[in-house]
Amino acid sequence: MSERDITEVLADAPSNWGKWGDDDETGALNYLTEAEVLRGVQAVEHGRTFTLGLPIGRREGDPVWPGRSAADHYMELDKGHFESGKFEMPAAGGLEYADDVIYMFLQGTTQFDALGHVWYDDQLYNGFDAGTTKGGMGRCSIEPMADHGVVGRGVLLDVARHRGRERLDRGERITLDDLEACADEQGVDLRPRDIPLIRTGWIELFYEEGEEAFYGDEFDEPGITYSDDLVEWFHEMEIPAFGTDTIANEQTVSDETETLLPLHGALLRDQGVAFNEINRLDELADDCAEDGKYDFLYVGSPLKIVGGTGSPVNPIAIK
Amino acid sequence: MSERDITEVLADAPSNWGKWGDDDETGALNYLTEAEVLRGVQAVEHGRTFTLGLPIGRREGDPVWPGRSAADHYMELDKGHFESGKFEMPAAGGLEYADDVIYMFLQGTTQFDALGHVWYDDQLYNGFDAGTTKGGMGRCSIEPMADHGVVGRGVLLDVARHRGRERLDRGERITLDDLEACADEQGVDLRPRDIPLIRTGWIELFYEEGEEAFYGDEFDEPGITYSDDLVEWFHEMEIPAFGTDTIANEQTVSDETETLLPLHGALLRDQGVAFNEINRLDELADDCAEDGKYDFLYVGSPLKIVGGTGSPVNPIAIK
Amino acid sequence: MSERDITEVLADAPSNWGKWGDDDETGALNYLTEAEVLRGVQAVEHGRTFTLGLPIGRREGDPVWPGRSAADHYMELDKGHFESGKFEMPAAGGLEYADDVIYMFLQGTTQFDALGHVWYDDQLYNGFDAGTTKGGMGRCSIEPMADHGVVGRGVLLDVARHRGRERLDRGERITLDDLEACADEQGVDLRPRDIPLIRTGWIELFYEEGEEAFYGDEFDEPGITYSDDLVEWFHEMEIPAFGTDTIANEQTVSDETETLLPLHGALLRDQGVAFNEINRLDELADDCAEDGKYDFLYVGSPLKIVGGTGSPVNPIAIK
Amino acid sequence: MSERDITEVLADAPSNWGKWGDDDETGALNYLTEAEVLRGVQAVEHGRTFTLGLPIGRREGDPVWPGRSAADHYMELDKGHFESGKFEMPAAGGLEYADDVIYMFLQGTTQFDALGHVWYDDQLYNGFDAGTTKGGMGRCSIEPMADHGVVGRGVLLDVARHRGRERLDRGERITLDDLEACADEQGVDLRPRDIPLIRTGWIELFYEEGEEAFYGDEFDEPGITYSDDLVEWFHEMEIPAFGTDTIANEQTVSDETETLLPLHGALLRDQGVAFNEINRLDELADDCAEDGKYDFLYVGSPLKIVGGTGSPVNPIAIK
Repeated sequence: MSERDITEVLADAPSNWGKWGDDDETGALNYLTEAEVLRGVQAVEHGRTFTLGLPIGRREGDPVWPGRSAADHYMELDKGHFESGKFEMPAAGGLEYADDVIYMFLQGTTQFDALGHVWYDDQLYNGFDAGTTKGGMGRCSIEPMADHGVVGRGVLLDVARHRGRERLDRGERITLDDLEACADEQGVDLRPRDIPLIRTGWIELFYEEGEEAFYGDEFDEPGITYSDDLVEWFHEMEIPAFGTDTIANEQTVSDETETLLPLHGALLRDQGVAFNEINRLDELADDCAEDGKYDFLYVGSPLKIVGGTGSPVNPIAIK
Repeated sequence: MSERDITEVLADAPSNWGKWGDDDETGALNYLTEAEVLRGVQAVEHGRTFTLGLPIGRREGDPVWPGRSAADHYMELDKGHFESGKFEMPAAGGLEYADDVIYMFLQGTTQFDALGHVWYDDQLYNGFDAGTTKGGMGRCSIEPMADHGVVGRGVLLDVARHRGRERLDRGERITLDDLEACADEQGVDLRPRDIPLIRTGWIELFYEEGEEAFYGDEFDEPGITYSDDLVEWFHEMEIPAFGTDTIANEQTVSDETETLLPLHGALLRDQGVAFNEINRLDELADDCAEDGKYDFLYVGSPLKIVGGTGSPVNPIAIK
Repeated sequence: MSERDITEVLADAPSNWGKWGDDDETGALNYLTEAEVLRGVQAVEHGRTFTLGLPIGRREGDPVWPGRSAADHYMELDKGHFESGKFEMPAAGGLEYADDVIYMFLQGTTQFDALGHVWYDDQLYNGFDAGTTKGGMGRCSIEPMADHGVVGRGVLLDVARHRGRERLDRGERITLDDLEACADEQGVDLRPRDIPLIRTGWIELFYEEGEEAFYGDEFDEPGITYSDDLVEWFHEMEIPAFGTDTIANEQTVSDETETLLPLHGALLRDQGVAFNEINRLDELADDCAEDGKYDFLYVGSPLKIVGGTGSPVNPIAIK
Repeated sequence: MSERDITEVLADAPSNWGKWGDDDETGALNYLTEAEVLRGVQAVEHGRTFTLGLPIGRREGDPVWPGRSAADHYMELDKGHFESGKFEMPAAGGLEYADDVIYMFLQGTTQFDALGHVWYDDQLYNGFDAGTTKGGMGRCSIEPMADHGVVGRGVLLDVARHRGRERLDRGERITLDDLEACADEQGVDLRPRDIPLIRTGWIELFYEEGEEAFYGDEFDEPGITYSDDLVEWFHEMEIPAFGTDTIANEQTVSDETETLLPLHGALLRDQGVAFNEINRLDELADDCAEDGKYDFLYVGSPLKIVGGTGSPVNPIAIK
């Protein structure tokens, strides 16, 4: 096996650079016009909501990309401070309160990647210089994406259930054909500008069997990966955003390119597609399996973090 | 002026304790049933979205409650690390990336308060012991609220515009009559289980005139405050949540009780009403003034922070 | 094996409570009078210095007590900020600078424990209520120890070399007899109020063979542990402080009491002895082996961290 | 007033680049040989010690350079966690403990600057490229200085007392003549390779009169500043390190160069002199005034922070 150069691999891959102007930092979220928001709203039938974010800062640990650490949470003020005489509330007539801080990787939980989070050939999405990342994302930070918001028609593609499995295996690949066959079996139409949520069942391994089982000897998540037809499909379908229940939204080491995470190059950096990573999809999936309705209003709302490479988020699906 | 004891002030105030069971930690968000979500969805007309969160971590500073500090953001990895030889990507074929951390008060920007954030008489919402806050919110943390999500019909009450002013003055009070007169003038119905967003114009003072102008000699925000009729109205209208463009959603020092933030006692702790604080409402307000439509689908989605006293959030209004 | 109650185990152990007054929070460091400082100074012969601290914040990780994490270090400002236009120095005539922050466990590297760091029976050293630790060490923090400083005659006890080994094994015990035999072999007198540094060779396992070899299946460091004669010896010798090259200065699970870290109860909490943990002693040990001189001026200087349970430190031995 | 370019100002200033080899990152601390350590030790007479560090993390705030923030300290574990059932010690027989973290600027208290902390003309001390600072100090970090330690003969120069004042005024200058006159009046010899500690009384303003009085309308500390004779003196005397009781060890805006902090260019970057900033010198000064002995063994021991621009420290003076 020889590692291939990503610049070569993606030489002829479709790109959206320039499509929304030379200054654009919002990318494929530009596809989410008022009409698409309305289309998402029209997918709502009964008003049932599902929140897709992971718990953050459990004492037992949270699943994160290797090298990142889980969030640390501290009380700056709690009842203990009052009991031990360390704090008094002035002029509050007996009112007391608790306050706290968090220290976390912006991508240390359910999150959106900023368009500039990953790059190659020294250029971020839309051609911005990778040097602009120094000391904070000067370009393609999460902020323009958070200003815009991510609202549209979401569609669950429950690939694990489609394959009759609790979850996919380490490193197991999903192809474009699989996605389409899954949608067919579910009886749901995938339409242009939809937001697909691909369920592998993978993240639950962390909660059910623990850290060691999850990380294994080699970190290699299941998922879609680079192929010509798949990136063409994203391009033609004008996919604004997609999500999964894995940490990086794609096969960790690509079967196809033999490199790490090539879709971060082909979709995030070249097409400006928003990546919504590490969702919990099981409850939503059970509900969809039960009522046969796999589409919904998807609302993802990253925080407006100045210069951020991403943002934690708790997406909501409204059926 | 003598400070009054909050326990006395609120002795006869309405309470929702026990209404949703002794174990309830979700509070008035329980009012947001599927029917209410649908009612919110039905308020959408054209699909225009407004994101209400503040920018987080500006080099110039962010507005925060006195004693808190604004978020600090650091690059754990950026192009500088690659240039100076401090990091190499293995097996990535030329792919590079940026990564970052944040250190912040969970209530140091646009946020939701957990129901247990403020208390008196040693009891949190629904009667839980204030001692459960020690070392993290064991009860009434933000997590159950984040599991639920905050989705319903939002209504903007643009009190600043109603008074013909750019913004209210330091410490200026808003009464229940003002809210109702404002709604009347705007031609919008306030209905049970709505989510009111009250605009004072106050937070923009920070961005327009700077820190010193904003904090002044004494920190005293404008807003609603405790009165018998106002807390009765919240109770009877079954208000699940409300928001403002101030840091604490109420007059800092109450005209009425002469104490700090009595509504945090009467609404958050007694009724379990969700507080969505420090929103930016100007763009939404301009749009509402233009088209005369003041209601919308409101989606607020706090993060599932284990033991958190609150969570940063970027609420979305969809008109 | 049945776990024994520490309160019972230590029922008759010697104590220094009250010896320096009811308000004392300095403990056995009180033994380090001017005379003892002079005695340490007199141990200096040739002026060779050895710094005993660990490197902090290596990308490869640092050795820490299980459950703690290693320090994280971030640049708040570096040349990258200037290059990418994110910062300009006003009125500096071309001067530029770098600045940085650290986020760390106060005991996440070579450090001193505060006297209140560990307790049993709800009482800290000198009888202070364990409730005073809530929200910060109100009593027996590192601050009084840091105000005092730790300066005296240090003596290296190179137990690993004494046993003819590179390092002791996981969980291997050192007895009082061993310490005395080691001193004898080295030809050094252990005198009252000396500061013994006990070398096991253990910490170098982390650097030489890596994290997995170091932590093993069960974390169980070698070292001294509770025995009647050993704690009596500390008491009679009026030992002010001692150090090791392990994370916790004692056998992790005591052979004797079958509990975790009983010396933290018997020495730190009962006698107020200062614990200087996780030193690197190899370079000093090689020098001592070469010239046969095992005593020196020891200078440890914890930081004055208000309410701290400990402090990072870089002790210096001057021969 | 026109700002002068620091490169021009320092064009003919003395330099130590190359003196200890092209790879040297220890600078003038190289002067502190065993002989100099011994000379320091010989200055000890009675064994009285003074710790010069500031308290870190006071609820009332700590004095820091504008733009930095004071340290934040949080309990990761305290008695409150045990009381509220959030933590249990396994196999400890009743032993409990407290643990904590700190988040701080490495230069947010009494500290040593790394030699690479400040630069001009894109070169750090000894000619290293300023680009090596990106993502962490690749060159001239605090680590080599911490490996070496700072041990030698210290001499207090109590300029405030010499001028008959409690403290110097905002922006007040100290010349080389002043230093020499002060030493004369004190009856102490300044010898080559000594470590001068210059007392202005300035830092106590923060503790005595508060933040506003300390920072004033413009931040402008008193101190020495660039002059040809002063930097020649440092060079000829082979000064390894010096300290003050101000935040930046020199006049903030130089009377002479009209730029910010030119000595950081002339001494730190050009000569590799170690800067020990923000000490508390009052107690030491009172003792010196009383017994007329102004020299002592100085021990400064920065932490070995990988890539750090500086390190907190609690220096000790032993008389």
